[in-house]
Amino acid sequence: MKRLFNYKNQPKIIGVSSICGPKEAQSNFAKYFELKLKDDKYYEETFEKAESKMMYTVIKNAITNSGKKETDIDSIFSGDLLNQIMSSSFSARNFDCGYFGIYNACATFCEGLILASSLIDSNYQDNIVCATTSHFSTAERQYRYPLELGSTRPPVSQWTVTGGGAVVLSNKGNYPKIMQGFVGRVIDYGVIDANNMGAAMAPSAFDTLYSFFKETNTTPNEYDLILTGDLGVLGGKLFRDLMWEKGYNIKKQHVDLGEIIYNSNDEEYQGGSGAGCSSLMFCSYFYNAIKERKYKKVILMTTGALLSSISSFQGESIPSITHLVVIGCGA
Amino acid sequence: MKRLFNYKNQPKIIGVSSICGPKEAQSNFAKYFELKLKDDKYYEETFEKAESKMMYTVIKNAITNSGKKETDIDSIFSGDLLNQIMSSSFSARNFDCGYFGIYNACATFCEGLILASSLIDSNYQDNIVCATTSHFSTAERQYRYPLELGSTRPPVSQWTVTGGGAVVLSNKGNYPKIMQGFVGRVIDYGVIDANNMGAAMAPSAFDTLYSFFKETNTTPNEYDLILTGDLGVLGGKLFRDLMWEKGYNIKKQHVDLGEIIYNSNDEEYQGGSGAGCSSLMFCSYFYNAIKERKYKKVILMTTGALLSSISSFQGESIPSITHLVVIGCGA
Repeated sequence: MKRLFNYKNQPKIIGVSSICGPKEAQSNFAKYFELKLKDDKYYEETFEKAESKMMYTVIKNAITNSGKKETDIDSIFSGDLLNQIMSSSFSARNFDCGYFGIYNACATFCEGLILASSLIDSNYQDNIVCATTSHFSTAERQYRYPLELGSTRPPVSQWTVTGGGAVVLSNKGNYPKIMQGFVGRVIDYGVIDANNMGAAMAPSAFDTLYSFFKETNTTPNEYDLILTGDLGVLGGKLFRDLMWEKGYNIKKQHVDLGEIIYNSNDEEYQGGSGAGCSSLMFCSYFYNAIKERKYKKVILMTTGALLSSISSFQGESIPSITHLVVIGCGA
Repeated sequence: MKRLFNYKNQPKIIGVSSICGPKEAQSNFAKYFELKLKDDKYYEETFEKAESKMMYTVIKNAITNSGKKETDIDSIFSGDLLNQIMSSSFSARNFDCGYFGIYNACATFCEGLILASSLIDSNYQDNIVCATTSHFSTAERQYRYPLELGSTRPPVSQWTVTGGGAVVLSNKGNYPKIMQGFVGRVIDYGVIDANNMGAAMAPSAFDTLYSFFKETNTTPNEYDLILTGDLGVLGGKLFRDLMWEKGYNIKKQHVDLGEIIYNSNDEEYQGGSGAGCSSLMFCSYFYNAIKERKYKKVILMTTGALLSSISSFQGESIPSITHLVVIGCGA
């Protein structure tokens, strides 16, 4: 099984954009988020239409920020948590380029980066956008309960981030670059509590990072940061423990994007989650920090819980997947 | 915009498998379908679990038929119509290899073929499975009405195929091969009738084939067959008319897989549809015919209507996409 992709030409991330809702605009990282919405309906009639518009806006802004024109873009890889990835499909109709709809739940962002990097690295295409979004109000009512019910949230739960991010990948320029990709496989340890996704995803994050270290013969110390999105507080701890048991101490490098996005308070418990959490956080503070060479070599892992409301209802456990990319600062 | 992928190494389709339900087992093509289920619940408690099992079985059988072992497979590209592509994710947990979840509705099969062929052509991976399934009873109750309601179907509707297919792509051997890929873009002509998907998808199929002919400077006569899956009777006619208006007569080569899967009767009206229709039909009669050199160069186009039950409910029109691959017989 070949899981490691070594990119000879190392596709460059030539532009990014990020968008977030009013709650996320209170984050410690808020000053790095490009567009902060005051209205989480984004002046639309429904939350679903708002999320599609968020996806459209963040893609459009990333293209503008990259200095490219819309006509330069060859294709878009995008995904979100809505049934039939509605935000992705409906935003893609506004762009005159190829479209690949992808879905690996909250692991979708790195899935897109791996596939898009492969297409650019091998010259099938020159400029590709990867984007993901999520929205608290669309996810909550689709996966859990009607918003109007005001359900009490269990302490192991995470809060779905209203936000998203987009990158433009290209074959030229002195920018942060995708050096390697490592494909996740589906891991299912039998966790059935759909509120405790951190516990369901931690073994998958472990499987990917442990296999990656083995295959590349590298150690945590060779990386400035190991980012996961989004295991949450508990899931992150489980993940570090699993790595520690196999002799890898990642305490110094590991940061979970879900754990840090919100300033700690009771409402979110374990932190943020959602397909847009990792892309929002990466396409703002972390991209800038890599660009400024504050971090030179970063592992970004996105973790996805592949459940649906039907699968949980039918008593199924939660299969999980984690994809990984290595991002380096420019030459 | 680069939409055309020319595969230098032309990935080979070294094995296929197909699976279908009891209704599809009455098709004129039934003798070419590998596994014909007598029970459309496949001995499971729910239709959703049955569809996951169908996806698992067809992937497993395709690997066996290809002469490869499961440990030879690098990754699976799969998609289906269920929310959060449940059949794909839940079947993938049974295979110890990489997983890329993809979703472009009924265009998913060619989306997978384009991406998997790119990864093999450029040597990132050696053996990849692409699979799609659909199930009448999971789709009907998710997208339309409860099965128990016994709703009358409008004459423009198509019948979701219970079935699916899988291919194993590899870098070696004298087998039918993927010569080119052509990426679809999202087209939305404002059709809002979720029962009339043929009309929604025809302009998208036209956009892809017309652009492909222009870009490759080829004509319909250079291909033995132009397969679409699935426009249905009416959609197929609209598609041929649109091509004719631009000076391309494809009457001789064009076959719609949805139109031919069922022996004409009132129940299905426009024919079959569903992510599994095109893969079921391709991975049986048509693959064999190409292997036997009955057809030497075939265009396969899968067409997807990117709606969701929420988008229709919120008054949205139906964006559509069509991906294309050119398949040639072995050397």
